[in-house]
Amino acid sequence: QLPADVAEFEAALAHSLQTWTSAGHRLVWLDVPLARAALIPVAAAAGFFFHHSNESDVMMVRRLVDGAFIPTHATHFIGVGGVVLNERQELLVVCERHRRTSRPYYKLPGGALQPGEHLIDAVLREVLEETGVHVKFEALVCFRHWHGYRYGKSDIYFVCRLSPLSYDVTMQAEEIEECFWMPVAEYFESDLVSAFNKRIVRAALDSPGVIPEWIDGYADPARYEFFMPP
Amino acid sequence: QLPADVAEFEAALAHSLQTWTSAGHRLVWLDVPLARAALIPVAAAAGFFFHHSNESDVMMVRRLVDGAFIPTHATHFIGVGGVVLNERQELLVVCERHRRTSRPYYKLPGGALQPGEHLIDAVLREVLEETGVHVKFEALVCFRHWHGYRYGKSDIYFVCRLSPLSYDVTMQAEEIEECFWMPVAEYFESDLVSAFNKRIVRAALDSPGVIPEWIDGYADPARYEFFMPP
Repeated sequence: QLPADVAEFEAALAHSLQTWTSAGHRLVWLDVPLARAALIPVAAAAGFFFHHSNESDVMMVRRLVDGAFIPTHATHFIGVGGVVLNERQELLVVCERHRRTSRPYYKLPGGALQPGEHLIDAVLREVLEETGVHVKFEALVCFRHWHGYRYGKSDIYFVCRLSPLSYDVTMQAEEIEECFWMPVAEYFESDLVSAFNKRIVRAALDSPGVIPEWIDGYADPARYEFFMPP
Repeated sequence: QLPADVAEFEAALAHSLQTWTSAGHRLVWLDVPLARAALIPVAAAAGFFFHHSNESDVMMVRRLVDGAFIPTHATHFIGVGGVVLNERQELLVVCERHRRTSRPYYKLPGGALQPGEHLIDAVLREVLEETGVHVKFEALVCFRHWHGYRYGKSDIYFVCRLSPLSYDVTMQAEEIEECFWMPVAEYFESDLVSAFNKRIVRAALDSPGVIPEWIDGYADPARYEFFMPP
């Protein structure tokens, strides 16, 4: 219900700011659609600044009281990786096509969570997409917390232990250059595997991990998941 | 180095878009400072849309190739809570001042991560801020993943087991209405505690949890933390 006309918006905003200030409000939020981008300079001139945005709109905010608390926006990306070990003690490894080194580098299949996706759904999806292998979730093994990731935000990489439900590899050739079952003993010996990846796989072999559980009193499994010690 | 003049920007942008398209680029990123908000409607008219923003600038993006992949922005908030149990088997509990129910509701001290903050630093800070109690980190117990939190983003709530280094409570009266040491047996029996909170405390008592560890090959402990099975 924002006016399309810039002058009309400017007058209405000035009047509203007075009203809201008198009423004792502390913050004003203003959600400006991309199609109304002409209103953004007006809001900026009236003391609004950016808070967050989606593709099609930007949320602006203005304090009516000095020092009024403004909650931050989302701070983290979440990624998942899978330790998939078959009955022959072979580990499902991938080598990414786009990497910094010319030498191959063998890591675990995985990738980023999609918005609103559960960790378990994400790791099953990513392993299937990258390798063509269907897997079953067993446990969460460990995670890495990393600051200074993309756009200055942080990242958490969760590693899951998975068991294979199929064995044939159908590699996603766009992103992955190699994908195969590597004997896990060879993985621990390889120069082409990082110390972190070796430590992860060792933890997956040695530890029961943390498992999903449902908690009484939570109504919607689509919105919540819980990980508890076994 | 964006021009301040709208007409100048409009002409320069049109020319640059042709050049970049000819050069085979797939995406153009445009970081517009709040002080240059007048350029946003120009960019929007030229096919740019919003990607993300900080207080003082908004990042816009435009595809030069149909379907070019654009990575998403941060999707998650992260919060931490602490199970602080003293030698007398008393649990440090808080009741928030701003809550939906008139009845008290006893939960664990904790709060949101600040940008760039480690989980361990955050939980020590939050417990101290809310309760005045100094604590030592013992282990990570469990976590809850929750979609549909603030601004349509998701949230992960990590629960840590902590041991007290001090006992006197200095409650943060702005946010907290009550804070005290409650016998843990009473906590498990109380109607004023959620099933989730009881389950968390039970897990903290029964399980060794997941512990911090440093991984060889990672250079900067300020940027990374790792949690591994014990």
